[in-house]
Amino acid sequence: MVRWQPNARGRLEQAALELYAERGFDKTTAADIAARAGLAERTFFRYFADKREVLFGGASALQDLLVATVAATPATAAPLDAVAAAFRAAGEIFDGRIEMSRQRQRIIAANRELQERELIKLSMMAAGLAEVLRDRGVADAAATLAASAGVSVFTTAFERWSREPEPGPFASYVDDALGELRAVTAAARPRRAIRIAR
Amino acid sequence: MVRWQPNARGRLEQAALELYAERGFDKTTAADIAARAGLAERTFFRYFADKREVLFGGASALQDLLVATVAATPATAAPLDAVAAAFRAAGEIFDGRIEMSRQRQRIIAANRELQERELIKLSMMAAGLAEVLRDRGVADAAATLAASAGVSVFTTAFERWSREPEPGPFASYVDDALGELRAVTAAARPRRAIRIAR
Repeated sequence: MVRWQPNARGRLEQAALELYAERGFDKTTAADIAARAGLAERTFFRYFADKREVLFGGASALQDLLVATVAATPATAAPLDAVAAAFRAAGEIFDGRIEMSRQRQRIIAANRELQERELIKLSMMAAGLAEVLRDRGVADAAATLAASAGVSVFTTAFERWSREPEPGPFASYVDDALGELRAVTAAARPRRAIRIAR
Repeated sequence: MVRWQPNARGRLEQAALELYAERGFDKTTAADIAARAGLAERTFFRYFADKREVLFGGASALQDLLVATVAATPATAAPLDAVAAAFRAAGEIFDGRIEMSRQRQRIIAANRELQERELIKLSMMAAGLAEVLRDRGVADAAATLAASAGVSVFTTAFERWSREPEPGPFASYVDDALGELRAVTAAARPRRAIRIAR
């Protein structure tokens, strides 16, 4: 008989983040996490396939939210505006989870394999956003470029938001980073682009 | 005594690309590559640390060229213009190597581990470009955003260039992709960014 554990997932997540921070990701086992959370090891495996999934399991929910939000933006929205709207909507997930987000960032920064996994996750996010843009009739290259630019805006926003002691709403960090991307990509000068003498 | 082998590196590269395409990357050994090139296995290891380096060994030369080109652009150049100039200069490496570039793309597309390695390479490229921009006095977020946007321009340009039967100079593909990025990121409408009803 499976006994229901109140908020088992949340307790396991919190225990995992603590242990990864204390001992390092590599030196922590699923059994350690379950013990810290006061749960049986088999309970851990009811929620997570492995200890890496504690850090990356939220990615598919985030991706679903992003894709659904882009799909719901008015057809007249410019591709990058639709992508930015999706990342603003993701603030629903991040706001109120600042402490966990910070812990997660630190753990990933300390482990090369996790950094690689994070890169792959971001690349899949960009691919998913490009696909939904193409479904809306955006040309192939424009969809890829808007999705990649959007992911850069997101990572810039996330980086700052998670470093601030008392950050405001995540959406405002997305707006700021989007403004900076636009400033950086605006063709500043009417003259031809610079060419370097060979 | 080490006997000098005319163009050993080039022969090994060509043999490796052929074998990776024929048998798959995983099923090819360094010994196979050396044999196909008509060279001893120890000759392979004088040029490459392992069979993966045949595909990724050029990355550091490319990175050096990119960083040096950004560093050499006039101080008045906008960050993204400096990065685009670097990728145009990289055409020196790519032009004339279209067949090898195509083979490499196909091999990487067929192997998940190689795709991950390619992502890491691109991420290191962006980090290196952001660093040289910061050295030039560009603010932290603007440097990161310009570097990432530049890498998206590069991958878009490379993708198209390597797919075309008889492509023109690589630099013109960089110009086109940069123009499209600018079109995609331009704030199309004066009204406020779109917000999705919660």
